[in-house]
Amino acid sequence: MIKLQKFKEAKKRLGGIINNTPFAYAPKLSILSQNSIYLKKENLQVTGSFKIRGAYNKISLLSDKDRDKGVIAASAGNHAQGVAFSAKHYGIDATIVMPEATPLTKISGVKAYGADVVLFGANYDEAYAKAIELSKKRGLSFIHPFADDEVIAGQGSIALDILEVKDDLDYIIVPIGGGGLIAGIAMVIKELKPNIKIIGINATGANAMAQSFESKRLIDSTKVKTIADGIAVRDVNPLTFDYVLKYVDEIIEVNDEEIATAILFLLEQQKLLVEGAGAVGVAAIIHDKLKVKDKNIAVLLSGGNIDVTVLSVIIEKGLLKQSRKMKFIVTLVDKPGSLMKLTQILSETDSNIVQIDYDRTSVALDYGEANVTIAVETKGQEHQKLIIDKLGENGYKIKEIL
Amino acid sequence: MIKLQKFKEAKKRLGGIINNTPFAYAPKLSILSQNSIYLKKENLQVTGSFKIRGAYNKISLLSDKDRDKGVIAASAGNHAQGVAFSAKHYGIDATIVMPEATPLTKISGVKAYGADVVLFGANYDEAYAKAIELSKKRGLSFIHPFADDEVIAGQGSIALDILEVKDDLDYIIVPIGGGGLIAGIAMVIKELKPNIKIIGINATGANAMAQSFESKRLIDSTKVKTIADGIAVRDVNPLTFDYVLKYVDEIIEVNDEEIATAILFLLEQQKLLVEGAGAVGVAAIIHDKLKVKDKNIAVLLSGGNIDVTVLSVIIEKGLLKQSRKMKFIVTLVDKPGSLMKLTQILSETDSNIVQIDYDRTSVALDYGEANVTIAVETKGQEHQKLIIDKLGENGYKIKEIL
Repeated sequence: MIKLQKFKEAKKRLGGIINNTPFAYAPKLSILSQNSIYLKKENLQVTGSFKIRGAYNKISLLSDKDRDKGVIAASAGNHAQGVAFSAKHYGIDATIVMPEATPLTKISGVKAYGADVVLFGANYDEAYAKAIELSKKRGLSFIHPFADDEVIAGQGSIALDILEVKDDLDYIIVPIGGGGLIAGIAMVIKELKPNIKIIGINATGANAMAQSFESKRLIDSTKVKTIADGIAVRDVNPLTFDYVLKYVDEIIEVNDEEIATAILFLLEQQKLLVEGAGAVGVAAIIHDKLKVKDKNIAVLLSGGNIDVTVLSVIIEKGLLKQSRKMKFIVTLVDKPGSLMKLTQILSETDSNIVQIDYDRTSVALDYGEANVTIAVETKGQEHQKLIIDKLGENGYKIKEIL
Repeated sequence: MIKLQKFKEAKKRLGGIINNTPFAYAPKLSILSQNSIYLKKENLQVTGSFKIRGAYNKISLLSDKDRDKGVIAASAGNHAQGVAFSAKHYGIDATIVMPEATPLTKISGVKAYGADVVLFGANYDEAYAKAIELSKKRGLSFIHPFADDEVIAGQGSIALDILEVKDDLDYIIVPIGGGGLIAGIAMVIKELKPNIKIIGINATGANAMAQSFESKRLIDSTKVKTIADGIAVRDVNPLTFDYVLKYVDEIIEVNDEEIATAILFLLEQQKLLVEGAGAVGVAAIIHDKLKVKDKNIAVLLSGGNIDVTVLSVIIEKGLLKQSRKMKFIVTLVDKPGSLMKLTQILSETDSNIVQIDYDRTSVALDYGEANVTIAVETKGQEHQKLIIDKLGENGYKIKEIL
């Protein structure tokens, strides 16, 4: 167990360096879940995630001599930015080893803080091995993303921030990747407010910790696959597993579909950009995974570093799911005026056409017919039914596609 | 002039009802503009915009008798939500008249607060006239969106919130629609901290206030067209114009392209969803419209109610502009293996294909040729150049399309 004093020192150390991110009541989410939901918005943290807390705390605690030699880490994401930011603060060299396929935006994000980037390996494990190798060869301090008590002490400072604002909570909901974040938070809470339950959330596509927690022994994944890339951790680390087993009350899973719904909810209702890993707690609330009512629940939004290309796909799919967009194929007689008549009906039903494709060579068609694939913006299920009915009345058969 | 006391009372009245939204330093924007930039995040306000301040203040100040009869407003946007929320708080009836073409999301947003919605008219002016008519017929208090001293007093309370956190500012940058928000803020500032300059931002596509300010007389627009729909106000109101002329230091314009860039910047760098009207200040900062350095500048993000379908288009266009996506047409020999070879080259240059279209019937083509339209995700200008060169070396001619 890490002593409470260490967490308090970490919080003090971080004061003035990082943002005191908002902790705020979320009215719509509260009504939806019939609980009082509060969001801790670490997506608004410096570097866009909580990871700076642990990285900064660890680097602060290196001896001056060690620190001056420089630090190294392996990460394609939030930990990389936390290390790079902290190194810049101390004016020391930072080397970040990233897998070769890392997107340019993540590379340039780290370079913007002045860190050296080494692209190596086909995946995180290979980059990790390279970072360990370089750390020994060059005498650099390796900063682990989670399996390190000083890193965990930094992450746990969030719990002290939360208690400062509100301590009559029933639950705190925390995303689980490597487990450093939840380990830190759980240790603080069990020391100061043991009645608050700590619930961890795993992505179904990377649920090694949930499985290990359930069976009380280390179970690694053979592969991971989730849109919550920030918590897509394959293997369970013995150190954090030990803490999680001791101090966490329950681990719940959410799938990618649920996470995507939560990302879109947070964007539209809370005006916040939250990455997949950061949205798992809200995914659990929206889909009533806790099955409780009238409780005070704090949900940690751990970060906001999601690629906007991914966001764009989530929005498009979300619109289809929420009946705010409809795609269908309609077969027309391939002659002048056919398309005009179709578009006229759509216009009369107040449907905005956003995509159209005309095909008359499909083998499924008779000669003289054409298939038109159309996407329209719609105003919900009733509106979609109206459009389908209206087209039906006019002799069009449509086949909805998803 | 509205007395300072009125603003102070409004602020007190709003305490506990609305969020004390964050006012925070923005590091990346500060580095970019070589100023110290602070963002006042009213997009995180209850109802997603500052408009609740004025609406609530006005409704609070009605006599009990008048208030109990109910209120009415004309608005398709943020003011509607502010009025509906406040009416719900007082347990009174609210009627909102919206133009017939109002998107369903905005209608249901208002209905969620229990307001009655009347859909009327082809545009705001017609809805406004209807609301005035109904207000007289039914004895309802009409809540004007800006031309009302009590509404302006509510909006101006933002200035007191800002000064509470930081009063050594050189500039406060405020979006201008009807002018109620900037009038309130400017009056407070000129009373308490007259050295702080108040800069108003108009959208170029709705610049009646900028033109009127410049010529010192009322100039109305014949039409408005901007993605900043929250400030797309056609005519200048004499009351707010009078205040703006007296207390505002300068009005600057930003165009839709600049606003879209700001929306995407706020999303990616600040993790905040901000609507067009709310992003005009950041648009002015990013595009160096103030032409100042080393100043303390507060920028008001007035709201976050943007339709995600609009956001999706802004993201897609933004990716093309920032060389993170490229669309091009390439002419192939229409035979087996042609497309395989092309996709192989793209794969070798690490370009992710996100859209593809194959056409062999264009009249511009020789027989035996086919046009392939491809969109790929790219990692910036250098990467795009590499792809173009590599395709060139292999004998492909490409035509980039935007």
